[in-house]
Amino acid sequence: MDRLETAGSAYPAPELDVTQWFGGETSLQQLRGRVVMIEAFQMLCPGCLSYGLPQAQRVRKQFPEVAVIGVHTVFEHHEVTGPEALKVFLGEFGILFPVGVDRHDGQRIPVTMRAYELEGTPSTILIDRAGNLRFTHLGALPELQLGAMLGELQAEPA
Amino acid sequence: MDRLETAGSAYPAPELDVTQWFGGETSLQQLRGRVVMIEAFQMLCPGCLSYGLPQAQRVRKQFPEVAVIGVHTVFEHHEVTGPEALKVFLGEFGILFPVGVDRHDGQRIPVTMRAYELEGTPSTILIDRAGNLRFTHLGALPELQLGAMLGELQAEPA
Amino acid sequence: MDRLETAGSAYPAPELDVTQWFGGETSLQQLRGRVVMIEAFQMLCPGCLSYGLPQAQRVRKQFPEVAVIGVHTVFEHHEVTGPEALKVFLGEFGILFPVGVDRHDGQRIPVTMRAYELEGTPSTILIDRAGNLRFTHLGALPELQLGAMLGELQAEPA
Amino acid sequence: MDRLETAGSAYPAPELDVTQWFGGETSLQQLRGRVVMIEAFQMLCPGCLSYGLPQAQRVRKQFPEVAVIGVHTVFEHHEVTGPEALKVFLGEFGILFPVGVDRHDGQRIPVTMRAYELEGTPSTILIDRAGNLRFTHLGALPELQLGAMLGELQAEPA
Repeated sequence: MDRLETAGSAYPAPELDVTQWFGGETSLQQLRGRVVMIEAFQMLCPGCLSYGLPQAQRVRKQFPEVAVIGVHTVFEHHEVTGPEALKVFLGEFGILFPVGVDRHDGQRIPVTMRAYELEGTPSTILIDRAGNLRFTHLGALPELQLGAMLGELQAEPA
Repeated sequence: MDRLETAGSAYPAPELDVTQWFGGETSLQQLRGRVVMIEAFQMLCPGCLSYGLPQAQRVRKQFPEVAVIGVHTVFEHHEVTGPEALKVFLGEFGILFPVGVDRHDGQRIPVTMRAYELEGTPSTILIDRAGNLRFTHLGALPELQLGAMLGELQAEPA
Repeated sequence: MDRLETAGSAYPAPELDVTQWFGGETSLQQLRGRVVMIEAFQMLCPGCLSYGLPQAQRVRKQFPEVAVIGVHTVFEHHEVTGPEALKVFLGEFGILFPVGVDRHDGQRIPVTMRAYELEGTPSTILIDRAGNLRFTHLGALPELQLGAMLGELQAEPA
Repeated sequence: MDRLETAGSAYPAPELDVTQWFGGETSLQQLRGRVVMIEAFQMLCPGCLSYGLPQAQRVRKQFPEVAVIGVHTVFEHHEVTGPEALKVFLGEFGILFPVGVDRHDGQRIPVTMRAYELEGTPSTILIDRAGNLRFTHLGALPELQLGAMLGELQAEPA
């Protein structure tokens, strides 16, 4: 998607299916009424480190009303990016938002990543106050464009 | 202002008082119904060149529905930054939006700059679809924040 | 050190004590006659990812005559940054130069890191054609300064 | 040139032919014995403002032994970039090094610019301690490469 889905044509965002949380447990159900930004990442993915996670950190700092969540959607190198490694990573890189570990059910792509039909990492997901999925995007996202979508979603009635 | 004025408490933006236009003549009156971003600058102001004008160019490219306008609000070094010099500057730096020359009436600060109570350059001004002044800011502006304000103003009914 | 040690007052660089190599085995002994730059890093160290390793990659590309080497000097989080994890990391981040794993002998700081008296990561080490240690530095290093030291060392007779 | 000319094959750098100095009068004759970096620029040239002049400022700050000089080599828009405008520009942009105004003799390209066979602005020129021309380059120059050339020239005997 290059633009927000209109509110009318959007469908409910799938609930996060997560086996473990770091930095606080949460759910989309709990966050109903707030705009939610999800950053899907892998800890050893260069684009996640260069622009995906830094941008999510900036949104976390500059938009206190927006709920920022990370999801660790590992689809390669599971053996060295498990929860123990992720915990160290989150501490060393000072990640400020809650991060959930996407569930594996035997397939290569984990469950939440499949539910959102993500094509890789980093991916950015926007969910409106009503819990509808309005935007997913793989790769770098211009700050002005992300800001505009957040501004527009924030402006929608709760 | 650190945030947009709410629509209810804003007052009408003063019309631009400009002696000459480059890149097309315009007016706030004509642009009623569109969100307007005005970049007030001076051609020999380092901050204008480093971040003010480049940001205005990005908004011009990424937000075709927003009307971006430059105003050359010269309050120092008039003798070397007149319209002839400005014209060369606009050509060399590839400025894509219309630029008006703020009127001088004998005071140090030109007329439009005084009407908007700007404190220096670069200053960024946002005007809503109804022609009301919603935001003015001196200096650098985070892209996410500017994007969010544009998104919010765009989301308001025409 | 803020500047190169003069050739006269420098002492021989300690040999690298490494348990495993990725991307090719090497040694200072073998590289005698060439200028050597060693980047000491840890794979989960933010400064290493932001500026230490990217700078070493640039030197590798722009100075084909300089021998660039990485040393993985793990002094924290050993349990999740072992050789298997490092191998994935080097592949994902496209590291172009040989990387050795610094030897652990039961102390917190590994052997090579102790021999060079490094205070943390990323650290940059410069060795001249004669095998003498001329520079060590913890943290970010301006490109102009690093370039000048490499130019000066390259200019010394082999 | 992509690399320094070797000392043996270089020829004497032409003396600067300048009608006016700002920030101190100087000449290559006077600077014999020091490495000299000349930044040839025009005040309304975007590349000069984005990378040429900022890089020259960094060299001025980080290499106190190197003599940095600017030459205003105007070959277009003379009417709005004369000495009065240049003086304002140098003050507003905080240029730290002496700047000379290249002489015009009726041809489009000014005299010093012709003597150095420069193809445009910004151009960077390096002169060794013996007064020989060792490098000219049009456009952006990687910091590591410029640093290396300065380090190599500094390492040559006075």
